[in-house]
Amino acid sequence: MGGDKAPESVIAGAQRALKMFPDARFIFFGREPVIAPMIARHRPLADVSQIVHVDDVVAMDAKPSIALRQGRNSSMRLALDAVANGQACAMVSAGNTGALMAMAKFVLRTLPGIYRPAITATVPSKHRPVVLLDMGANIDCTSEHLVQFAIMGDAYARAMLGIQKPTIGLLNVGAEEMKGHDEVKEAHRVLRSGSIPVQYFGFVEGNDILEGTTDVVVTDGFTGNIALKTAEGASRLIYGALKSAIENSWSAKIGYLFARPAIRMAMKRFDPRRLNGAILLGLNGIAVKSHGSADGKSFANAIRVAISLVDNQVNEKIIEELRSVAALAPAQAVEA
Amino acid sequence: MGGDKAPESVIAGAQRALKMFPDARFIFFGREPVIAPMIARHRPLADVSQIVHVDDVVAMDAKPSIALRQGRNSSMRLALDAVANGQACAMVSAGNTGALMAMAKFVLRTLPGIYRPAITATVPSKHRPVVLLDMGANIDCTSEHLVQFAIMGDAYARAMLGIQKPTIGLLNVGAEEMKGHDEVKEAHRVLRSGSIPVQYFGFVEGNDILEGTTDVVVTDGFTGNIALKTAEGASRLIYGALKSAIENSWSAKIGYLFARPAIRMAMKRFDPRRLNGAILLGLNGIAVKSHGSADGKSFANAIRVAISLVDNQVNEKIIEELRSVAALAPAQAVEA
Repeated sequence: MGGDKAPESVIAGAQRALKMFPDARFIFFGREPVIAPMIARHRPLADVSQIVHVDDVVAMDAKPSIALRQGRNSSMRLALDAVANGQACAMVSAGNTGALMAMAKFVLRTLPGIYRPAITATVPSKHRPVVLLDMGANIDCTSEHLVQFAIMGDAYARAMLGIQKPTIGLLNVGAEEMKGHDEVKEAHRVLRSGSIPVQYFGFVEGNDILEGTTDVVVTDGFTGNIALKTAEGASRLIYGALKSAIENSWSAKIGYLFARPAIRMAMKRFDPRRLNGAILLGLNGIAVKSHGSADGKSFANAIRVAISLVDNQVNEKIIEELRSVAALAPAQAVEA
Repeated sequence: MGGDKAPESVIAGAQRALKMFPDARFIFFGREPVIAPMIARHRPLADVSQIVHVDDVVAMDAKPSIALRQGRNSSMRLALDAVANGQACAMVSAGNTGALMAMAKFVLRTLPGIYRPAITATVPSKHRPVVLLDMGANIDCTSEHLVQFAIMGDAYARAMLGIQKPTIGLLNVGAEEMKGHDEVKEAHRVLRSGSIPVQYFGFVEGNDILEGTTDVVVTDGFTGNIALKTAEGASRLIYGALKSAIENSWSAKIGYLFARPAIRMAMKRFDPRRLNGAILLGLNGIAVKSHGSADGKSFANAIRVAISLVDNQVNEKIIEELRSVAALAPAQAVEA
């Protein structure tokens, strides 16, 4: 029920996802009288879907703490419960991010040894996708949180992108060791010490994210959220400027006719709909957050991400990696 | 002497700037045997230039504290001294940012009532330029610092961009009041209270910077630096992808011939060389930081910025604004 275009976009997304993953099965949590007729209209989807009627919906502007207390019978909460009790392998929601984060932490709990889950996104870069975390789950992060994000990002890049030894960068305002605040400096010291079995590259700067300098970029949720949204804004600005330049010139319009196929192809990988689906990484269960404004195509991608996380056993890889850290340096890895 | 292409780029920049501002006069601080023959080659520039021979140069990788202690006879320091003692109206350097910041603070001091200077940049947006501060001078900022940045940004936008009542946004991870860390929440409270005579818009997000939602965007130096560099990375990524798409397709190449003039025109305002020149705002004197990799055209723009700051009396406007804040709410504005 969450998101600007729900429930239509959610159902359309499931229908599209079913084409990509014919083995998928769906449980829809929401107002049956509204969603049942919509699902019935999509025959193949209806055959593999189950509806759990829920009246209560978490409002898009609800405070996370309130949603957590009062939303015990909401569609969001019951979908998370289904993951917790093994009824579902994963849940996807386009609803209130803060509420989803709070509820998911409460219902699923973090993986053993993980202090804080992180919102993880994949962004395009020059050559291959880059994993970015945290994108907004944790406003204030200690150095231990940042080190754990490095471990989770490493496991994620190996599982989801198939990179054998992903390089990890720590986002900072300069590459020199003396730069940055205490938390990044301390995380840098730990990651460089060799006690964490990841391929640590060192500090990276804002421009390095999309240049693909490293496979994974680690940062706190405040900075990560702003960096990601600034990059979106920059793409939109450049794209918009080009578009209006072409529309305002006859010769450019003609030129565009020739260049269109190549340009469309090049721009495809920046399509926000293909990038939809941020993961709440570090939880004891798979929960994926779709953008609130997602349409069907976009929501289908969030479902694709959820299925890949299950198929590629991301959580198992994180647990494994944490174990090897604990074996290397028990005190450092286990202390909260 | 600072920067990757100095001293050539500095001299070429001055020569270009002289064409824009025929009344400008220059004092070059650096190694006379190297720079004198270069300047002599540019006749009109040589006529309005004076050379102060300095052997000592601040290394690009010198720690700010070391540069401050050991660089008393460096070209950077002597150029700042010239501003402090009234010999020069402004100084421009492409040297070590941290060293410049530390030295400028020490030599010029902050304006009366200002706690911390902020690196201020102007970025293009959909409609008109947006003022962004702090871009990296202050890694940790209190709410008081952020409020003062709002005042400085307001004065800057009025003086430099001619906007009568600039709107001020505070960068955060969401528009809701409960979001963000304590410092932004407290700065939001103060700015919203009406005790500061600026047109406060409220929280803005990363994408709002380049969408031009507000005329000024205020943030701490860590976030601002990363946001700015991420935007640069995003522009370069999109631009590069388009370029290679066009280069790899014959029909697109033909199309580009028709579209080129319009595209070039549209891209002009994103040319980093036209945006070069970050201001150390809040100091008792004008100091402008050019990008280290600046070429002549780029350095000329940094000089243009310095001259405009003097001509438009930015510092006088900041002092005025601080006075009116002090008159409105003396305790809040004056306390450190």
